[in-house]
Amino acid sequence: MTQHPAFPLYPHRHLLGIKGLSPQDIELLLDRADRAVAISRQPEKKTSTLRGRTQINLFFEASTRTQSSFELAGKRLGADVMNMAVASSSVKKGETLIDTAMTLNAMRPDILIIRHGSAGAAALLAQKVGCSVVNAGDGAHEHPTQALLDALTIRRAKGQIARLTVAICGDILHSRVARSNIILLNALGARVRVVAPSTLLPAGIARMGVEVHRSMAEGLAGADVVMMLRLQRERMAGALVPSVREYFRYFGLDAEKLTLAAEDALVMHPGPMNRGVEIASEIADGPQSVIEEQVEMGVAVRMAVMEALLDPRRSRDEAA
Amino acid sequence: MTQHPAFPLYPHRHLLGIKGLSPQDIELLLDRADRAVAISRQPEKKTSTLRGRTQINLFFEASTRTQSSFELAGKRLGADVMNMAVASSSVKKGETLIDTAMTLNAMRPDILIIRHGSAGAAALLAQKVGCSVVNAGDGAHEHPTQALLDALTIRRAKGQIARLTVAICGDILHSRVARSNIILLNALGARVRVVAPSTLLPAGIARMGVEVHRSMAEGLAGADVVMMLRLQRERMAGALVPSVREYFRYFGLDAEKLTLAAEDALVMHPGPMNRGVEIASEIADGPQSVIEEQVEMGVAVRMAVMEALLDPRRSRDEAA
Amino acid sequence: MTQHPAFPLYPHRHLLGIKGLSPQDIELLLDRADRAVAISRQPEKKTSTLRGRTQINLFFEASTRTQSSFELAGKRLGADVMNMAVASSSVKKGETLIDTAMTLNAMRPDILIIRHGSAGAAALLAQKVGCSVVNAGDGAHEHPTQALLDALTIRRAKGQIARLTVAICGDILHSRVARSNIILLNALGARVRVVAPSTLLPAGIARMGVEVHRSMAEGLAGADVVMMLRLQRERMAGALVPSVREYFRYFGLDAEKLTLAAEDALVMHPGPMNRGVEIASEIADGPQSVIEEQVEMGVAVRMAVMEALLDPRRSRDEAA
Repeated sequence: MTQHPAFPLYPHRHLLGIKGLSPQDIELLLDRADRAVAISRQPEKKTSTLRGRTQINLFFEASTRTQSSFELAGKRLGADVMNMAVASSSVKKGETLIDTAMTLNAMRPDILIIRHGSAGAAALLAQKVGCSVVNAGDGAHEHPTQALLDALTIRRAKGQIARLTVAICGDILHSRVARSNIILLNALGARVRVVAPSTLLPAGIARMGVEVHRSMAEGLAGADVVMMLRLQRERMAGALVPSVREYFRYFGLDAEKLTLAAEDALVMHPGPMNRGVEIASEIADGPQSVIEEQVEMGVAVRMAVMEALLDPRRSRDEAA
Repeated sequence: MTQHPAFPLYPHRHLLGIKGLSPQDIELLLDRADRAVAISRQPEKKTSTLRGRTQINLFFEASTRTQSSFELAGKRLGADVMNMAVASSSVKKGETLIDTAMTLNAMRPDILIIRHGSAGAAALLAQKVGCSVVNAGDGAHEHPTQALLDALTIRRAKGQIARLTVAICGDILHSRVARSNIILLNALGARVRVVAPSTLLPAGIARMGVEVHRSMAEGLAGADVVMMLRLQRERMAGALVPSVREYFRYFGLDAEKLTLAAEDALVMHPGPMNRGVEIASEIADGPQSVIEEQVEMGVAVRMAVMEALLDPRRSRDEAA
Repeated sequence: MTQHPAFPLYPHRHLLGIKGLSPQDIELLLDRADRAVAISRQPEKKTSTLRGRTQINLFFEASTRTQSSFELAGKRLGADVMNMAVASSSVKKGETLIDTAMTLNAMRPDILIIRHGSAGAAALLAQKVGCSVVNAGDGAHEHPTQALLDALTIRRAKGQIARLTVAICGDILHSRVARSNIILLNALGARVRVVAPSTLLPAGIARMGVEVHRSMAEGLAGADVVMMLRLQRERMAGALVPSVREYFRYFGLDAEKLTLAAEDALVMHPGPMNRGVEIASEIADGPQSVIEEQVEMGVAVRMAVMEALLDPRRSRDEAA
């Protein structure tokens, strides 16, 4: 075990959501990720931790960032990475998710990364296959690696998460990013606010342990972190799509609204951004923005998650 | 040659079809594949047999299973694998198969894996290029690695192929899988039956050395292996597409029909399955099904084929 | 630096165009490429020069040849190569080139290969990112690795470039290949002619230091190299698309026209070819054609360029 002397064995085989993780689980992943950051900053950004392991990226929804991030994470760990082009796959011929999964499983991957439009798809997969599963976004349910990379970005900038006030703003209703972040930030002791027009708030949101605000003035007041969400117009029915100009006026983050937050507040966005819709360009590119660091932390977090799930001590334990 | 002590030099440079292979050729590939199975069952599923070799997958027809299987096979052997996304390639600009092939050939690959809608495409390619070619399915002609993986699955379950009764059922007419299997199973001494409605039987099928049956009751009686084929409705003209319900009733494999076969008969399907069309879900997932093992054997067979074709002794011999 | 004893440090960090390169820069890349040819001719075509380096291919326009060539070049150098499927990426969600670039940059690649429909896209990218950028074709502007591979092909066949007469024929107007070649060939002392109908000549072409001919008889007379261009009908507005038959008659390279060039003239084409439009099949496949060698040289030139840009001495110098 000379390879992992510093980290205790991570207790889970899959990463399906933030829900169900203890604060210790989360901190362990963030600690590992802190170490992974250094690897990607070297000229030779390569380890052999996952040499000979097979990683399959099974993306039923396209995503530049997330798929690329998992692909680079796997390659930098030395894994063999295979992207499944699902659009051109058997799915077209009417094969079910489960048949696709069973087929891939029979090829003996070590880890499946799945993005799917339906909540629960990752958990369903995990029940059927013999390898580790990472949820890379399932419907409006969870996107755990996004929440972890956000937490890592905050922790590196602020030193800790506990007691920070984090305002998550915008399209909460359609956002698995918001859900995963709310669960994680609560688990680590942050104060979480959601800020959105009523039409973009899910029913029962207050029961998730957040303060609910319907105006940016209230929601941003004194916040340490301002996390903007992408307005997912593609998921909205015609009549409910807000006017972009009006949305920006009331809920877009611009210089004026940002002055309401703490002076050193971090500005975050999971990307891809709608500039001029939920965020002004000057803010996205401004000094408080950590949006690019989020992307960098994404690769590190995914390296950490895959290493933790495929820890060689795990197979031995399970074989014992 | 310490690397290949156990296997005699495979005598062919290409794998274009099962036709033309001797029983010894086939057994040699299956013996190699038996060994390759073990590699994919290790945590570190990696050899360096094909390190530095270039494998190009040139798929003119999309296929989840076959392309993934070849990709993983190549990566586990240490090869550099490149998938050609043919849909977005120069083919759109009107370049011919041959020009595409010559271009790829000039990049000095060691092996080209081709799937194409026209019978004979793989053989044509093999005449033009300076590297090994593997046919991954050409029109209604052949799909040799599928037949090899089916044979491997049967041999591992039953101990041998000779003297087994194998019933290949369903859409024989459009099936290169059926053709390759018939040739291979005959070469190894099995008794082969085909079972299909007259409209799905090719003219002259009886001359291929098979018993022809038009009812499942006859065709399955006492069979040791029941190999179901995918109903390729996408290849059928409108009026001839059978009603799914009627097809299932007469030619779909369900529990009742399966009792006609031998008690320990294997149930096989090349995938992707149309559940409820050519096979009932309970059978596909039942105890006699070896459908997932077929997929696993697919990776192993492809590893074996590529290793055999790219045997380092071959270059030396040819250079000598 | 035992790894690069023979080559002086290449002075540029990016390759955005041939313009701006000195003759020494060009010769240095060609010398390196000459050595890279040998690597791809070995059975084990692999070095570890770029081991652990991350190469991202960001192609906004599809291209079989160029993307494959860069992919194989990177893999043979040991780099981790990631292709960005831009069609299925965030670009669809309205993300800008710059946001895409900044996202990729945050993942800490060492080199970005970009193809884009707009002139200047590569240069814009290079200003924004912290890694090396290679222009793989930007609008009608430049395609520098194509010009380098053409030069390598000529130099290997003819021994030198200086004082050769090179006729570039056909659709000069839409061709970044022509532009990059004109600049390079002039820099190395060739005499460059362009031959095209007036409608396919850009305004001001004569100021690029070329002889302009409007007939093949004049333009080919005594030429040492005949470089045919693809007729880019897809970029032409309806009324201006020439009739294929007429185009071939006046500007297509056939056996008769080729006799006007020097007896040992090389015939070149960047591909993909329109056979029977700008070139007759018998000429494309004939003894004077070096079209396939161009493709082989493409991989070598791209290996050379990436090695030169990512020379490990560079980081040290910049860090110093």
